[in-house]
Amino acid sequence: MTDSSDSPFGLGTLPYGVFERPGEPPRIGVRLGDSVLDLAATAAASQWPNAEVFASPSLNAFMALGPAAWRDVRARVADVARCPDPDAVVVVPLDDVTMRLPLEVADYVDFYASKSHASNVGEIFRPDSPGLPPNWKHLPIGYHGRAGTVIVSGTDVIRPQGQRSPQPNRRPPFGPSTRLDIECEVGFVVGRSSQLGQPVPITEAWNYIFGVVLLNDWSARDIQAWEYVPLGPFLGKSFATSISAWVVPLEALEAAQVPLPMQQPEPLPYLSGGEAACGLDLHLEVVLNGTVVAKPEYRDMYWSPAQMLAHLTVNGAGLRVGDLFASGTVSGEAPETFGSLLERTWNGTDPLQLDDGTARGFLEDGDVVTLRGWAPGPRGTRVMLGEVTGRVVSSPYSTV
Amino acid sequence: MTDSSDSPFGLGTLPYGVFERPGEPPRIGVRLGDSVLDLAATAAASQWPNAEVFASPSLNAFMALGPAAWRDVRARVADVARCPDPDAVVVVPLDDVTMRLPLEVADYVDFYASKSHASNVGEIFRPDSPGLPPNWKHLPIGYHGRAGTVIVSGTDVIRPQGQRSPQPNRRPPFGPSTRLDIECEVGFVVGRSSQLGQPVPITEAWNYIFGVVLLNDWSARDIQAWEYVPLGPFLGKSFATSISAWVVPLEALEAAQVPLPMQQPEPLPYLSGGEAACGLDLHLEVVLNGTVVAKPEYRDMYWSPAQMLAHLTVNGAGLRVGDLFASGTVSGEAPETFGSLLERTWNGTDPLQLDDGTARGFLEDGDVVTLRGWAPGPRGTRVMLGEVTGRVVSSPYSTV
Repeated sequence: MTDSSDSPFGLGTLPYGVFERPGEPPRIGVRLGDSVLDLAATAAASQWPNAEVFASPSLNAFMALGPAAWRDVRARVADVARCPDPDAVVVVPLDDVTMRLPLEVADYVDFYASKSHASNVGEIFRPDSPGLPPNWKHLPIGYHGRAGTVIVSGTDVIRPQGQRSPQPNRRPPFGPSTRLDIECEVGFVVGRSSQLGQPVPITEAWNYIFGVVLLNDWSARDIQAWEYVPLGPFLGKSFATSISAWVVPLEALEAAQVPLPMQQPEPLPYLSGGEAACGLDLHLEVVLNGTVVAKPEYRDMYWSPAQMLAHLTVNGAGLRVGDLFASGTVSGEAPETFGSLLERTWNGTDPLQLDDGTARGFLEDGDVVTLRGWAPGPRGTRVMLGEVTGRVVSSPYSTV
Repeated sequence: MTDSSDSPFGLGTLPYGVFERPGEPPRIGVRLGDSVLDLAATAAASQWPNAEVFASPSLNAFMALGPAAWRDVRARVADVARCPDPDAVVVVPLDDVTMRLPLEVADYVDFYASKSHASNVGEIFRPDSPGLPPNWKHLPIGYHGRAGTVIVSGTDVIRPQGQRSPQPNRRPPFGPSTRLDIECEVGFVVGRSSQLGQPVPITEAWNYIFGVVLLNDWSARDIQAWEYVPLGPFLGKSFATSISAWVVPLEALEAAQVPLPMQQPEPLPYLSGGEAACGLDLHLEVVLNGTVVAKPEYRDMYWSPAQMLAHLTVNGAGLRVGDLFASGTVSGEAPETFGSLLERTWNGTDPLQLDDGTARGFLEDGDVVTLRGWAPGPRGTRVMLGEVTGRVVSSPYSTV
């Protein structure tokens, strides 16, 4: 192998995933360019400590070893990638493997950390109220999503059916969603548990995060708009949440740390982390049927990952290995940076023109959405994020 | 053993739990009066099929065998309880065991199925709006809670800290919750998985439910009131949800099926289950420091368990073995049947007088809350539900 630190998925990235080949059990691999380093085989052949964790069908057992092991394994992988011992290193072509969901998701929490997104959604869903709710600048608003419907990139997304808002004194219409949307988000994979009752201080928060995925929070806006008062989104979101197959270790993103935008009013002490509350300079793209329809910039986010984690646990809620929390839609101030179709087309009133000559307000069956991104690495290199893609298909089941 | 079908936890109940004795691994047992039938030892000695599932530390592997196995095992347990073979049946005193969380909770969903509760909360939290939101009678409103903080009866509940609503133009106050509450609920344990994208028809819904627990949805009303707009309850609920150690099989509740209260307007077809949409005649009690402070009746609930499960999956969301969904607070029309202190004391304005001479608006440190209940069994017998109890303790951690 060559030093591919300047190419996609080079030595500066080394993301983890779970792959499978026909007739063989799923196991952990590391992406290197267009190849997969078989970590289960390599660690066993080289007698790495705890090598058995890499033979498992999720990252959870590896993550549970803790941050010292994460650093150690990353260093070992970089070594073998630089100078592979042909007797001990097993590499397979990416085209020969099927990627699986990289982790067993314990609890999934979705935040709402972009000020522009929250303002836009407020204007669209609640035109008679102020765009931002009164609590928004005091705490990172979040809610629990459905862990069991987190799916890996490449899995088809079946258009959900449900109730929509009725005309006055009529029954709610029922059927396949007519306003199927995406949300371009960044997901953070928690690799350490914490004790029930013990908040994680913001200065410790980064030490609980194993890595980063791109995440598409598919959203049925018509179902959501009717159901969400007063207890929040439920069926409008719970049918599918796609994540990238590759988890980029947090260590790969050290050069991407950036200061947060100004937070005014100043957050309460438990959310004031100084440098620990930094943002990340992730450059994202939303691609719809081959057309780049948005370029969200993660550095625009108001609430930082460490603030979200500190808030999530301040009430004593415990963390488990495999918890996943997401940023909420990444949207900046410019329309080109809006990370949802709801905002990008202003609730369908201003359709997007695609390169194939068609236009879209919301998603049609057959549409393919891909989220991709990169971050600055050391010395001018790029760290690629795992992409997440999914195709919308009509429901194969008759309406019940 | 005697035929104890007329005594608490007799042959008509036979609930499952996971118990532990010092120095021995946790395993599955069945409660019989004040004893525990060691199902792991009994099934192994008697060479029951799949006996190994009972040696595991949760009910999940047993549940995954499916409804035919649930019926078969219940019949076998009833046989050995009636005529125990001393060489094959192992029974230990309840006092000698520690009970553990009976299942690995996959996803946890909490509903809002009592009309009285929803009306009361609406009046208290949103005095300027109609009590019931416009969607309430069209769908069982629900939201996802935190699976990782579901705890077993007997576990202390640490008072959460968090932000509260500020005075105008002030910062939010921060500290331990001053309005800590309970919600008396019934939880339904899902024992079968379903396929992503395939709704579970209401007529099939009961076949996915393994059993019933009592559930205390501890709620910090001050934290909740500030955070919940627009994405729903989060930290006000996620610090702890207690469930009973004993899961009563659905088969034990066949005699407790009752018609639902009138539903008007008529629900959409996917929620119209005829007899499948029945309610359950569960008689519940909320006990605070020894005083019975409320007697909720589950038959008063508007939305039925089968309707909740059908709604939960109508968008294609898949079920997993170990999913848990709860009814929301069980409240009837009479104040004595209100299943939360929020309602019972009308947001603390009308404190409860306890038998020890003290009064309570919300919970104080040291308070012990127990939920208990029973259902009619066949031929005038009673089926006991597992009780769920918890003591409130102050946070051992300094404010961060």
